[in-house]
Amino acid sequence: MARRVIEGAGAPADLAKTVADSLVLSNLVGHDSHGIVRLDEYAGWIRERRLLPDARPSILASLGGTTHVSGSWGWGQPAALLAVERAGEAARQLGIGMAVVSDCNHIGRLGEWVEILAAQGMMAVAFCNTGSPVVAPFGASRPMLGTNPFAWALPGENGQALVLDFSTAIVAAGKVVLSALNGEQLPPGLLLDPNGLPTVDPHELFRGGALRAFGEHKGSGLAIMIELSAGLLTGVMPACLEAEQQGNGTIVIAADTGRFVSASDRRRIVSGFRAAMHSAAADRPGTEVLLPGDYEERTRDERSAGGIPVAFDVQRAVLAVAESFGVQVPEFC
Amino acid sequence: MARRVIEGAGAPADLAKTVADSLVLSNLVGHDSHGIVRLDEYAGWIRERRLLPDARPSILASLGGTTHVSGSWGWGQPAALLAVERAGEAARQLGIGMAVVSDCNHIGRLGEWVEILAAQGMMAVAFCNTGSPVVAPFGASRPMLGTNPFAWALPGENGQALVLDFSTAIVAAGKVVLSALNGEQLPPGLLLDPNGLPTVDPHELFRGGALRAFGEHKGSGLAIMIELSAGLLTGVMPACLEAEQQGNGTIVIAADTGRFVSASDRRRIVSGFRAAMHSAAADRPGTEVLLPGDYEERTRDERSAGGIPVAFDVQRAVLAVAESFGVQVPEFC
Repeated sequence: MARRVIEGAGAPADLAKTVADSLVLSNLVGHDSHGIVRLDEYAGWIRERRLLPDARPSILASLGGTTHVSGSWGWGQPAALLAVERAGEAARQLGIGMAVVSDCNHIGRLGEWVEILAAQGMMAVAFCNTGSPVVAPFGASRPMLGTNPFAWALPGENGQALVLDFSTAIVAAGKVVLSALNGEQLPPGLLLDPNGLPTVDPHELFRGGALRAFGEHKGSGLAIMIELSAGLLTGVMPACLEAEQQGNGTIVIAADTGRFVSASDRRRIVSGFRAAMHSAAADRPGTEVLLPGDYEERTRDERSAGGIPVAFDVQRAVLAVAESFGVQVPEFC
Repeated sequence: MARRVIEGAGAPADLAKTVADSLVLSNLVGHDSHGIVRLDEYAGWIRERRLLPDARPSILASLGGTTHVSGSWGWGQPAALLAVERAGEAARQLGIGMAVVSDCNHIGRLGEWVEILAAQGMMAVAFCNTGSPVVAPFGASRPMLGTNPFAWALPGENGQALVLDFSTAIVAAGKVVLSALNGEQLPPGLLLDPNGLPTVDPHELFRGGALRAFGEHKGSGLAIMIELSAGLLTGVMPACLEAEQQGNGTIVIAADTGRFVSASDRRRIVSGFRAAMHSAAADRPGTEVLLPGDYEERTRDERSAGGIPVAFDVQRAVLAVAESFGVQVPEFC
């Protein structure tokens, strides 16, 4: 259904497949915030000509271990996929490779892209800046940074990768919206009001407040380095310097683990590490240690078997988008 | 003085200079925990034959963009410096380079190594695992990870780099030791007791307790990825899998920013970003936003002008180390 909607918006079939697969995969692994609900946002961007539905990503420069990709202001996911392919190719040849993506719309769930590389035996790191300032760095009284996600993957023992993927905001803006809708207060420590003072009232975010960065000065430092590194290298300027800045300035780095450890040793070590970590809460019933990617793996298994629940509001929004593009789709069941 | 002590321990002059310069630089920028106080620990390792004072780092393999360095169980700092040189050289040729260091003792302050690369126009990332489990990942009831630092540097506008450098433990073990010595309680949320329960009693750390990872599940995920990535690629096994594991399994990645942004644009953007960030707390007197590296820069200026204060205990320890190696050094003044 997602594929037909995206094609209806003007995307060639191959791009529509990449974008739709990416959105549905996010739903499948339990990150509904990055799933088909995004079709509504993308449709708005197409109407504003921020997203050119038939534009293809292209390679601006490629030399040695680095590639500069342009997203051509088309769909972000095919641009991210091209960056992943180029970084992986360089890493297979040279041991390490990097790709940088400019002029790039929303790339979806960052973890997807590093997981592809991990499945090829790579250690992969990716990060991007994300436009509009909404996060206050440590010590600041107002929003200066995007939600700037960071992802890091390693190949697992049986095709199951370890995939770390987090926003450097202490809480998702989506959760603050939900609390506001439900009339709930937030736990303390997440939000600043427009005067830079701590607040638990979720409405303050929409009055010019800010999410805090995660992890106090350390997480804030990471958010700052992502903002500036991505801003500098992709040409997507740091959010605090350009009011009109938008898109995901994305960087992907891949390194071939096979240069340093054999696949069999790697499998043995990861397997032992996983078992040790999972046992590290065994003496305290009701608690557990999850490795990065465990939650997504579990949810994928559950939803592959039992289907993906789609909230009624999301169903309605997707059907409206389909209709706006003149696409006939079956009702959700 | 540090140089003479290290030479007295059996190090060739060039290695002694690298190690001494590194330790004193840590004092100069305000990280006394990584300064000359370490001579006492290193002397113990030399007596235990864990650190071979005349061993030189060597290159085990170098191909394309990657280099595998062995620290030869000598001093860690010259091994880190060799990794930095090789990663930088690959990045100048190929746009990106990586070096991995095995058989490596303590490399000192991680930020030093990425800062060298930033001064050459590189974006640089480094991390290492650090041996003995002392950090409990999110959800765990016992220590499973080292303090696993992470560093990230970018070239600044006038030779002044941005240098992020943090331990993934929520608090330094040294601070817990100090609280114990002073009979003080810790703030809540930092420490687990040997049963995996929260405690504010610093003594619980030495009874089998654990430091928590910083940043809840996000920082914990970073600590886990460092432990496993460094453990896998350097052969310095994850701490939870080998009781006798020691040393710093170190990874350095460098990328040439010049491939993606001109030096003049880079300087302009970093300068604008720095000014914007510094202004982000201007409306709240008594608060300020520090960029990664600002604290070190300030302290370097202060201590370059006014000298480096050295605690009496540290003076006494360094003089005792000197004496143990039969080295005559002047008293501290």
